[in-house]
Amino acid sequence: METELKEVEVVNRRSSFNSMDLTVRFLALALTLVAAVLLGVNKETTTVSVTLISSLPPVDVPVTAKWTQMSAFVYFVIANSIACSYGATSLILILINRGRNKLVSLTVTILDLVMVGLLFSTVGATGSIGLIAYKGNSHVQWDKVCNVFGEFCNQVAVALFLSFAGSIAYLLLIVLAAIKLHKKF
Amino acid sequence: METELKEVEVVNRRSSFNSMDLTVRFLALALTLVAAVLLGVNKETTTVSVTLISSLPPVDVPVTAKWTQMSAFVYFVIANSIACSYGATSLILILINRGRNKLVSLTVTILDLVMVGLLFSTVGATGSIGLIAYKGNSHVQWDKVCNVFGEFCNQVAVALFLSFAGSIAYLLLIVLAAIKLHKKF
Repeated sequence: METELKEVEVVNRRSSFNSMDLTVRFLALALTLVAAVLLGVNKETTTVSVTLISSLPPVDVPVTAKWTQMSAFVYFVIANSIACSYGATSLILILINRGRNKLVSLTVTILDLVMVGLLFSTVGATGSIGLIAYKGNSHVQWDKVCNVFGEFCNQVAVALFLSFAGSIAYLLLIVLAAIKLHKKF
Repeated sequence: METELKEVEVVNRRSSFNSMDLTVRFLALALTLVAAVLLGVNKETTTVSVTLISSLPPVDVPVTAKWTQMSAFVYFVIANSIACSYGATSLILILINRGRNKLVSLTVTILDLVMVGLLFSTVGATGSIGLIAYKGNSHVQWDKVCNVFGEFCNQVAVALFLSFAGSIAYLLLIVLAAIKLHKKF
């Protein structure tokens, strides 16, 4: 009777872990998907007054900001797309496997870890560029651009926050796997 | 006899895993230490010709590049210092614990994971700034600066490579722990 109760408890604990893994994985997928789309569709056109010759009045020139103009933003969209696609693939794999094959579980954990590296590096890259775009840097004479492209910058900030949340979700998946394995071991 | 052989094999395998963990951990410590020092002591002074008034000849102005002038570089030095200090602390903890306390092993694995996130984000941040310093970006009119501060840029590149190697080492530590736990479970 006691053994049966213990077994039920173990099964319950395992299923609660699995459902938590699936929920966090789905969250990671959704967050990175929205982050990639938000930056991918981000585009702002504004007019800037340019003085060509000092004796003539300034000319209004239309300028456009797009994610393709900055390597860090291109990396951001690609990295979040990879993390999102992997999130969907791993979700299907886990649902099919259901913890039966140890090699599949190990591979998923290692690939989760690769996603952590990929996402944290892209958050760092976009964050550092965003900081200079927002504040500028006088030492290298890189002027701030967020006073011109305000909406574009805001959308980048939202995408950055979502991608950071996505990377924390992938990090949490490895923590969950580590706790699960340490409990069993 | 067979059981004894098996036991010896398991002990051998465990010790080989432990020595590999210690070696990789020491490598991670050393790499992040050198990366932090390399960028922390990085300083270059050069003279730039500046034309103040067009009727007068250009004036030579001394300009200095330091890690404190760029937020991404400050983050790089701090993050690598944290990763290096943690590397030393965890090395001592592992040598004292020797796998006896499961909670210590779990905590070390989770903190290794935090180091992966920290280091990858700093590699991304410094890498994206370095790319613009090296090539410039015409869309936001951020000019390249590596043509002026060549030596400074080279030293940043070396520190960046070492820090990337350090983050791969921390990533490898989690892979080793995952393989070990999956084998036991």
